[in-house]
Amino acid sequence: MSESKKYAVFGAGSWATAIVKMLCENLDEVGWYMRSVYTKEHILKEQHNPSYLSSVEFHTEQLKLSNDINEIAEWADVLIFAIPSAFMHSELEKLTSDINDKIIVSAVKGIIPESGLLVGEHFHDIYNIPFENIAVIAGPCHAEEVALERLSYLTISCADADKAKAIAKNLSSDYIKTKISDDIIGVEYAVMLKNIYAIAAGIAHGLGYGDNFQSVLMSNSIREMKRFIKKMHKMKRNINNSAYLGDLLVTGYSVFSRNRMFGNMIGKGYTVKSAQMEMNMVAEGYYATKSAFELNKKNKKKTRLPIINAVYEVLYENKNPKKVFQKLTEKLD
Amino acid sequence: MSESKKYAVFGAGSWATAIVKMLCENLDEVGWYMRSVYTKEHILKEQHNPSYLSSVEFHTEQLKLSNDINEIAEWADVLIFAIPSAFMHSELEKLTSDINDKIIVSAVKGIIPESGLLVGEHFHDIYNIPFENIAVIAGPCHAEEVALERLSYLTISCADADKAKAIAKNLSSDYIKTKISDDIIGVEYAVMLKNIYAIAAGIAHGLGYGDNFQSVLMSNSIREMKRFIKKMHKMKRNINNSAYLGDLLVTGYSVFSRNRMFGNMIGKGYTVKSAQMEMNMVAEGYYATKSAFELNKKNKKKTRLPIINAVYEVLYENKNPKKVFQKLTEKLD
Repeated sequence: MSESKKYAVFGAGSWATAIVKMLCENLDEVGWYMRSVYTKEHILKEQHNPSYLSSVEFHTEQLKLSNDINEIAEWADVLIFAIPSAFMHSELEKLTSDINDKIIVSAVKGIIPESGLLVGEHFHDIYNIPFENIAVIAGPCHAEEVALERLSYLTISCADADKAKAIAKNLSSDYIKTKISDDIIGVEYAVMLKNIYAIAAGIAHGLGYGDNFQSVLMSNSIREMKRFIKKMHKMKRNINNSAYLGDLLVTGYSVFSRNRMFGNMIGKGYTVKSAQMEMNMVAEGYYATKSAFELNKKNKKKTRLPIINAVYEVLYENKNPKKVFQKLTEKLD
Repeated sequence: MSESKKYAVFGAGSWATAIVKMLCENLDEVGWYMRSVYTKEHILKEQHNPSYLSSVEFHTEQLKLSNDINEIAEWADVLIFAIPSAFMHSELEKLTSDINDKIIVSAVKGIIPESGLLVGEHFHDIYNIPFENIAVIAGPCHAEEVALERLSYLTISCADADKAKAIAKNLSSDYIKTKISDDIIGVEYAVMLKNIYAIAAGIAHGLGYGDNFQSVLMSNSIREMKRFIKKMHKMKRNINNSAYLGDLLVTGYSVFSRNRMFGNMIGKGYTVKSAQMEMNMVAEGYYATKSAFELNKKNKKKTRLPIINAVYEVLYENKNPKKVFQKLTEKLD
């Protein structure tokens, strides 16, 4: 992949904004698609995103901004999607231009609810993108710390190591270190599953469990994640690498994680609906829980997933979180 | 091991006090040795430890308190040591009675500085205790949460599974779940190493590194711990079990951990000596760092230990923490 490839980011949330910032450290021009006309005008006028990471100042001459998804998709060679999974389907419906020969990078933290597919699988199945042209960006990385230029590590996964390296190079800087991996499916599942475990951590916190229990929960979560991913895509991987364990920890231990916050409200007695209304958003892990549960239902031999099952019972079967977690504590060790 | 065995705890710090509390849930009488006459008198008069976990009330008729280590050692069948490793040597010097036929349980979080031995090894080498009569109690478990009766999990390791089970049973209660393990050496090393990684986490925090980096540091720490323990004692173990990963996390992520606090002061610019004076104690991890470093020096083929080496350079070679950690970030992934 030549270094003259054009990069574009799709989405205007905090993670999208952080990725644009990273790319701006290396590229003369970065494409940036966003739905909101207001956000685009604000960035042009005030040099920052009005709603997310607003402390990050952009040189607008570096940005190719547009509210037209097709304009940016046609212009760019490398398309980085950082749209919440719940909006991916409706955004992609607007995409009419041919993206067959593009490199698709997922920075989406979940599964597409409408198709039940990982973002990589979705592009492969629906758009016929070959797997060697699909990559995934994984943390552990809070966007807020990228804004502060605090040292963070990213893992870029792609079946084609040269493409992973090129993307990694364009994201690297003084404060971003990158590594590459060829476990695209495993990393995508890890990114999705960690949000379920962050909800579990939040529920436990909301119910009054302490730090001792949280560490047991995280220790069981990484073992459960390993079993889940191994069943879905068996290959040699070290589950304790940053893209899996690191990402789980930064999400599960963060009081800023929206998934953890959502779980916390559930643990404190909010209904799912009232928690979602209060937060004015749906946490990614909410969809991920259903997807993971149903994926495992399809397995002939079920994987033991006590934590995912517990979160599913609370979120989708309206069961009492206190009782569900009491039962869960018997299954952990 | 019959259930009529007598248990005693040696030490009066927070972890010792928590273990006495756990045993009092199950046993009619618990032996308790402490050095301080004042502490003993206070417990008898006020039913609580004046200095640690003072919210925990004891029924003093359940306690056999003494300031005479030999009296308690002779009375009990199961001797649980929860004395800071730095004081183990001087306390054991007072021990003149024969403990050859006793069961020795280590709840000491470190290595004995004078002998450079793990506590289990120390009792085996110096007192000729056979390994099947030596057990280790490991967390993840902050004593403070035991005081609050918050659900916690312990791992009891012993080569003799029946003994591990009996000890586990006497520690179990509504709020304490236990499991057993036969990896006594691995668990003792994990208990010791986690304190070094907690110091590293503290130094990083003190230097201004954020949550993204902390999760990378923990992800690298557990991989480094796995390498270290495997080299010392190769056997099949899951390093992500609670006694290893869980204990690392509860220590590394806790703002109450004295090791993390010590590291934090070093990161903020205190010298080792002034940090120790300010804290009025020496963090266990301080000794553990030296021990781990020297144990690895003895290895013909050195284990790659970038984090332990970095902490050693800061604590023992007076190197600039900022520079040492900058170099360390290049070695993590």
